[in-house]
Amino acid sequence: MFPYHPQGYPFPYFNYQRVPHGYYYPPYSEGGWGWWHGALESDESRRLPEQQRLTFVLVHGSWADAHFWDGIAVVLRSQGHAVYTPEYAGHGTDPNKNVTHAMITKSVVDFIIKLNLREIVLVGHSFGGSVIQKVAEQVPDRIKRLVFWDAFVLKDSESVADELPPPTRQGFEQLRAGSKDDTIMLPFPLFRDLFVNTATLEEAKRFYTSVSPEPAKPLFEKLDLKAFYMLPTPKSYVYFYQDNVLPQGEGFGWNPHMSTRLGQFRLIVGDGDHFTDTRTRPDMVAKKLYEAGRD
Amino acid sequence: MFPYHPQGYPFPYFNYQRVPHGYYYPPYSEGGWGWWHGALESDESRRLPEQQRLTFVLVHGSWADAHFWDGIAVVLRSQGHAVYTPEYAGHGTDPNKNVTHAMITKSVVDFIIKLNLREIVLVGHSFGGSVIQKVAEQVPDRIKRLVFWDAFVLKDSESVADELPPPTRQGFEQLRAGSKDDTIMLPFPLFRDLFVNTATLEEAKRFYTSVSPEPAKPLFEKLDLKAFYMLPTPKSYVYFYQDNVLPQGEGFGWNPHMSTRLGQFRLIVGDGDHFTDTRTRPDMVAKKLYEAGRD
Amino acid sequence: MFPYHPQGYPFPYFNYQRVPHGYYYPPYSEGGWGWWHGALESDESRRLPEQQRLTFVLVHGSWADAHFWDGIAVVLRSQGHAVYTPEYAGHGTDPNKNVTHAMITKSVVDFIIKLNLREIVLVGHSFGGSVIQKVAEQVPDRIKRLVFWDAFVLKDSESVADELPPPTRQGFEQLRAGSKDDTIMLPFPLFRDLFVNTATLEEAKRFYTSVSPEPAKPLFEKLDLKAFYMLPTPKSYVYFYQDNVLPQGEGFGWNPHMSTRLGQFRLIVGDGDHFTDTRTRPDMVAKKLYEAGRD
Repeated sequence: MFPYHPQGYPFPYFNYQRVPHGYYYPPYSEGGWGWWHGALESDESRRLPEQQRLTFVLVHGSWADAHFWDGIAVVLRSQGHAVYTPEYAGHGTDPNKNVTHAMITKSVVDFIIKLNLREIVLVGHSFGGSVIQKVAEQVPDRIKRLVFWDAFVLKDSESVADELPPPTRQGFEQLRAGSKDDTIMLPFPLFRDLFVNTATLEEAKRFYTSVSPEPAKPLFEKLDLKAFYMLPTPKSYVYFYQDNVLPQGEGFGWNPHMSTRLGQFRLIVGDGDHFTDTRTRPDMVAKKLYEAGRD
Repeated sequence: MFPYHPQGYPFPYFNYQRVPHGYYYPPYSEGGWGWWHGALESDESRRLPEQQRLTFVLVHGSWADAHFWDGIAVVLRSQGHAVYTPEYAGHGTDPNKNVTHAMITKSVVDFIIKLNLREIVLVGHSFGGSVIQKVAEQVPDRIKRLVFWDAFVLKDSESVADELPPPTRQGFEQLRAGSKDDTIMLPFPLFRDLFVNTATLEEAKRFYTSVSPEPAKPLFEKLDLKAFYMLPTPKSYVYFYQDNVLPQGEGFGWNPHMSTRLGQFRLIVGDGDHFTDTRTRPDMVAKKLYEAGRD
Repeated sequence: MFPYHPQGYPFPYFNYQRVPHGYYYPPYSEGGWGWWHGALESDESRRLPEQQRLTFVLVHGSWADAHFWDGIAVVLRSQGHAVYTPEYAGHGTDPNKNVTHAMITKSVVDFIIKLNLREIVLVGHSFGGSVIQKVAEQVPDRIKRLVFWDAFVLKDSESVADELPPPTRQGFEQLRAGSKDDTIMLPFPLFRDLFVNTATLEEAKRFYTSVSPEPAKPLFEKLDLKAFYMLPTPKSYVYFYQDNVLPQGEGFGWNPHMSTRLGQFRLIVGDGDHFTDTRTRPDMVAKKLYEAGRD
């Protein structure tokens, strides 16, 4: 059995009438790629490695804020891409930790609409995967491609917590119960071994200073994702094989466990872990996100 | 349970009386490796990295023809290997697309016999895996080692289509039903994301010009493979970890799902995808095939 | 279901009262890392890449002896680490092959106590994983971290043989039955394809001269590991993705099949196989063991 195949799940490969304009490429034709030939006409793009100019919207995960993307955004912008890193409810400077998943989604949707962004490559990392699933439902026409990077792809009616191995979930429930404001704080040993396992201890400590308690509620909310699974939007999954936030196999994990729920998707693999490379190798991460996001 | 273990499946490790002559190496003995010492006697092989001279027969997969191997063959020949890339029925310049799996197998078997090839390293890529399974049944004494590269290893009485996730299979059935000559053509978006996911769009487009409709019937034929599973021929599996033509896990995929059916096999892993590296990094592919094929 | 979750299995993340002294790092505090700042005070550590000085005890696996570690120990010592490679019963120069798993464990425990080693990074490779599980039960206060490198992590009451695919197990049982001294010798073709698959044939032959028959009994002994699963000792798993001694998936293998039994663990991944890199790339292996072992 294919891992996730609800009733009425469309076979995404062949709904060409629903594929975003300009995406479907008729066999044997060489034309119709105006953006590309356009890009090649400038002198600059001849000197640089060929890069299609993309509009990235980068959505971070839990125990992070929009600065998570700082290094990667610098690299992508230096290559000519437009890069946006919206902050969302309950994170960054927002003092209110009492937020819902819908409020988080609304933050990103409002950001996209206010800036009138279009042809977006919408990237979600970790918990951000569940956010871009819901954002995509609300502004599908603005999205060129969805990119999940070691990110949750939830089934309809699932919560993020439903994808955690039982001991991890129980641990999170204990931490949640012990907090005064319904948040979960990662203890350093867990952060060090699961989120920044390839980092030096110094790097891990520096990273940890930017970790703050995560609003718990959105992790346990079950999401209606029926509309998401009807979207014909092209999708990619970036998987870093030293990422061990979830066990990779035995019924859990990023790839292939959750990635295959996307139906047809482009796979890009790197050798990083969950957090470290954003700081130590932002060029590597940027390269993988570009490979995932380009046409 | 071991994934595939039919009644009477021989434990391949210990049937030394059936191992091809010259392969079994008695413990603690240093002698008996004439080819090797011979190779080292020439001046040329002293200057080059040590390479055993092999005879490769390379069998391509679906949506490809023998030119699939062009770049890799150049590299392997430059290293002193003999390389053969037989075309098979329904492919290349053959105008007849109404072919069977047996006709395809016969093309390769006839090629091997006509050229009187022996001590072959027989490599199958993708669908070509099912072809070399059947070829090996017919000319076992000519084969030194079987190498499956992201290739189907079918169970007895299985078809290639049986190894596809249900949505992929249904999609192929739709495409087949819509064709006039019982073929399946890959739409570009599917080809781009599943077969050449790591390529640039330009590379993907260039590659796609060589893709032509694939005869459908051989993909759906169930094969009798009882004889294959009695062969003591040494086997290798080359797995590229960005290959996502099949999901890798959850009951599907190249490795370990199909590779483990080989019993004892030598695993070689690379970082490529299904098609791209044949053109962009033929030296990398050649190196992996050599590592899989050497004694 | 989480793969292994016996009754009473503690959720290791949150038992901080049981975490070895000095390991738990209170959120938002920058202090308390004396060893690190100490290390940075010397001129030498400023010139070298930053390395915490560790005490490694390296426990080899089957068909190997303590010389397995020679190259890796040279590299680690050159980086300032203390490295110990105890030999254990039935191996090396020990003429007695009639040993038990308990005797093997005792060899390592006695070695550690005799040399009064403390704050140990205890590394087990392959079968050595089951040894460090039992050693950890006996000298838990001396161990800073357990590192499993493509190593068995047995469930309570399991034997190493229980983790072998049935055909492999049957093959070993045949070899055992055919021996005069209750040992198992690896035939060269199996060793070459499963243990040193990435090696050249010359390297494989050279390696094979150091392989001697392995006492069979300890591989088939079921171990009481209840105490192991109560230990709060930090744990790491090093996985080399070309290691195919066990199939990696479908209910078998190093990672994630056995690694996830550790509960919370730090994952480090490399591109090697089971044996080859100890001789061809000891610096790579040393780097991965350091990444797994450091705080």
